[in-house]
Amino acid sequence: MGASEQHFLYQQVAEDMRRAIGMGTYPAGERLPSLRRIADHYEVSLATAIQAYQWLEDSGFIEARPKSGYYVLAQGCGEACEPEISTPRMKAGEVTVGQLALDILAEARRPDIINLGAAIPGPDLLPLKSLSRIYAGVVRRDVRLLGYYEEQQGNAFLRQQIARRLRVSGVRVHPDEIIITNGCMEALTLSLRTLCKAGDTVAVESPSYYGMMQVAEQLGLNVLELPTHPRDGVDLDALQQALDKNLINVCLFMPSFNNPLGSCMPETNRKKMVAMLQRAGVPLIEDDIYGDLGYDSVRLPAAKAFDKKGEVLLCSSFSKTLAPGYRIGYVVPGRYFDEVLRRKFLGNIATAATPQVAIAEFLQKGSYERVVRKATRYYQQRTERLRQLVLQHFPEGTRVTQPQGGFVLWVELPEHINGVALHDAALRKNITVTPGVIFSPRGDYRHHIRMSASMVGLDVMTDAVNVLGRIAHKV
Amino acid sequence: MGASEQHFLYQQVAEDMRRAIGMGTYPAGERLPSLRRIADHYEVSLATAIQAYQWLEDSGFIEARPKSGYYVLAQGCGEACEPEISTPRMKAGEVTVGQLALDILAEARRPDIINLGAAIPGPDLLPLKSLSRIYAGVVRRDVRLLGYYEEQQGNAFLRQQIARRLRVSGVRVHPDEIIITNGCMEALTLSLRTLCKAGDTVAVESPSYYGMMQVAEQLGLNVLELPTHPRDGVDLDALQQALDKNLINVCLFMPSFNNPLGSCMPETNRKKMVAMLQRAGVPLIEDDIYGDLGYDSVRLPAAKAFDKKGEVLLCSSFSKTLAPGYRIGYVVPGRYFDEVLRRKFLGNIATAATPQVAIAEFLQKGSYERVVRKATRYYQQRTERLRQLVLQHFPEGTRVTQPQGGFVLWVELPEHINGVALHDAALRKNITVTPGVIFSPRGDYRHHIRMSASMVGLDVMTDAVNVLGRIAHKV
Repeated sequence: MGASEQHFLYQQVAEDMRRAIGMGTYPAGERLPSLRRIADHYEVSLATAIQAYQWLEDSGFIEARPKSGYYVLAQGCGEACEPEISTPRMKAGEVTVGQLALDILAEARRPDIINLGAAIPGPDLLPLKSLSRIYAGVVRRDVRLLGYYEEQQGNAFLRQQIARRLRVSGVRVHPDEIIITNGCMEALTLSLRTLCKAGDTVAVESPSYYGMMQVAEQLGLNVLELPTHPRDGVDLDALQQALDKNLINVCLFMPSFNNPLGSCMPETNRKKMVAMLQRAGVPLIEDDIYGDLGYDSVRLPAAKAFDKKGEVLLCSSFSKTLAPGYRIGYVVPGRYFDEVLRRKFLGNIATAATPQVAIAEFLQKGSYERVVRKATRYYQQRTERLRQLVLQHFPEGTRVTQPQGGFVLWVELPEHINGVALHDAALRKNITVTPGVIFSPRGDYRHHIRMSASMVGLDVMTDAVNVLGRIAHKV
Repeated sequence: MGASEQHFLYQQVAEDMRRAIGMGTYPAGERLPSLRRIADHYEVSLATAIQAYQWLEDSGFIEARPKSGYYVLAQGCGEACEPEISTPRMKAGEVTVGQLALDILAEARRPDIINLGAAIPGPDLLPLKSLSRIYAGVVRRDVRLLGYYEEQQGNAFLRQQIARRLRVSGVRVHPDEIIITNGCMEALTLSLRTLCKAGDTVAVESPSYYGMMQVAEQLGLNVLELPTHPRDGVDLDALQQALDKNLINVCLFMPSFNNPLGSCMPETNRKKMVAMLQRAGVPLIEDDIYGDLGYDSVRLPAAKAFDKKGEVLLCSSFSKTLAPGYRIGYVVPGRYFDEVLRRKFLGNIATAATPQVAIAEFLQKGSYERVVRKATRYYQQRTERLRQLVLQHFPEGTRVTQPQGGFVLWVELPEHINGVALHDAALRKNITVTPGVIFSPRGDYRHHIRMSASMVGLDVMTDAVNVLGRIAHKV
């Protein structure tokens, strides 16, 4: 319950109100209960009620009308303007998406670019200064750390800190069950290499993270895309069907805030899914890199929490929450520990020690929760604002996800608008968005883009979406 | 010629004398020319001549007899006590050596261990303090470096510094032709993954670095061992025969100071080898990790220097010269650049930025040559001393390489002495040596061990070899 304790009271009130608005309890244009009544209802102070309404106003859910009160703003079209459940072909095949995927991060590094594409955390939301102070201290103090190869498995102190933090998501492991990696990508790649041989089939959510499509391509794996709901994640009936037909060797899912959908699989589904997979003897690679960035005050248990057989390989990192530049991630590989560790050694012997110790000390000092909560609240506001801007400026028929965590949106454009063409035209205006085609192994999602709300200020965002909207009308 | 300029004059004199002793110009027991004559002959000061003789005495080549002069000490049996050229089966096969290889580094990390096994540079010879100062400065100054993913290809400043340094080994490349990796192991693994598919055959020196055997095993490659001379490296006639029979897809060699042999391929052979391989259309992965640790004052050109087609992939790192804990290496992949870079991205996106900048600043400050020269002189003495101790204490018939660089020895024991048994018995006395079996894909070299002279002081080394000798007599 560590995560929820850190959540401010006003945030819980605001979240509950937001849900009520989303469900239509308070339709657009309606006057909301007075602050006094809210304070009474939630048993909070008036100040807290004011904070909650302030947050809802900042996020664009409500507006204050002078001398009248607070009113619900039109939320575009509610669930109707979210994309529907995906309907991939459910036929495993080789990956054919190419170089395009690799240009995205490079574009985002251009100093003149307005990044609405790459999923990089906002640098102002990262505790860079405090981390750097700790890091510099470690470098100067533990001089001899640099003179040795670190343990292949990773620094023991960091593993201890991670084991402690994992309890928040219901995962109880000994520090010795954890392997430190150079970021989450390495954790995922090592896991996939361990579990698969060429010709095997890996099942993924549709759409899902392009990096993994590329890895699958490189390893000669087939990818089976499963129908995925933009709110609840992978469709379990479809998964069961595929399991019944023995179509799947391994699953690679992001139950918490799939990139690009932002979907979050409900707890009951997680439990059911793990049981289904374990009955079928199919291991699950769980990509939890966005797991700590959920908007809800309660952190759901990871799928790994329901793992009884050591068949769930939990992968994550600090790249989205603390700093991508550290390149520190980890994998809890269950019964595949020895094989994953061996591959880690053969890949690069061990991860550098000093950044590991720096992150461990930061975690130990205890401000991780606060830092991540603050960033998450910001991402939620920004993502919501970006969503509204897109619905406002993009051509009619555009649908946008309403993510439950993270900082990206999945935008479904009218069918005649090509996402790659939009990307290309936007880039000429120094704006980058991520074309949807790379989130599918065979270049589906042609009229989709992924957008990131993490890196640009509100004014720049407003102007840029305006420009994008005009481009989208023309493309 | 950067390297040779840093070489002290006395060192050149000593080296020349050492060679004369090795060639029998001055046999054991013979009185050496007087200091005055040496000074005249080499056109150096008397002080320099004294330094040279001092060095030879410290290294155990000569002894001073009071009021009489300097005399040549018995060098065991000269070339006769070096191992002969290896005679592997020259039949490609799968790799079967297992877990043993992975325990070596772990053993060396035990605080109570006397490490005569793992090839880790001596921590007192690394510029750890000065590096740490620079590193801490970078961390505090470039706070925002940590907030981004570094360029996939690696930090531009570091690539510039590496490109400059590569000129010393005759390699002229643009910084944009270099990819930074997490150490040399990653550079080698990425190269091998890029060039090979399962079932391909990679040719290696025999014996050669166990890590690569493991990678080959994991990738399902066959390994073809080539006869290798402990002084001159791989036998080119054997290589040509294998090429003529189309047995080889890729070569992976360490022309400079093969681990474990310490062999150094002569310049003419390097040139000839590259031409042979390029005629046959077989790419070469050149592992140059020990390249800067040659005892000779002149650094030979890397094989890459003779590469006209972009078919030599040069791999190296700073793990043996500056600090293994940084995990910074690089590959110059020639015409395979795009494919290697893609694999780097899919492996772990990018290498952490700050240690890259720290190493770049260290290189720029210009003390790299001096630091490495000093360490190399030390390694040469220590390796020579270890060699003599082994010849003195180990059973008759033991042969030891006389390496030309690096800090490891390859010890051939009498046939009835099992290297693994020796390793096991030594470990019970808290001494670690590396069993020879892991340097061959199918567990040959059963009566061999690799020893490292880098990490223990002279007294401890003397006692430990004494203990090892007693064990070897009993095993």
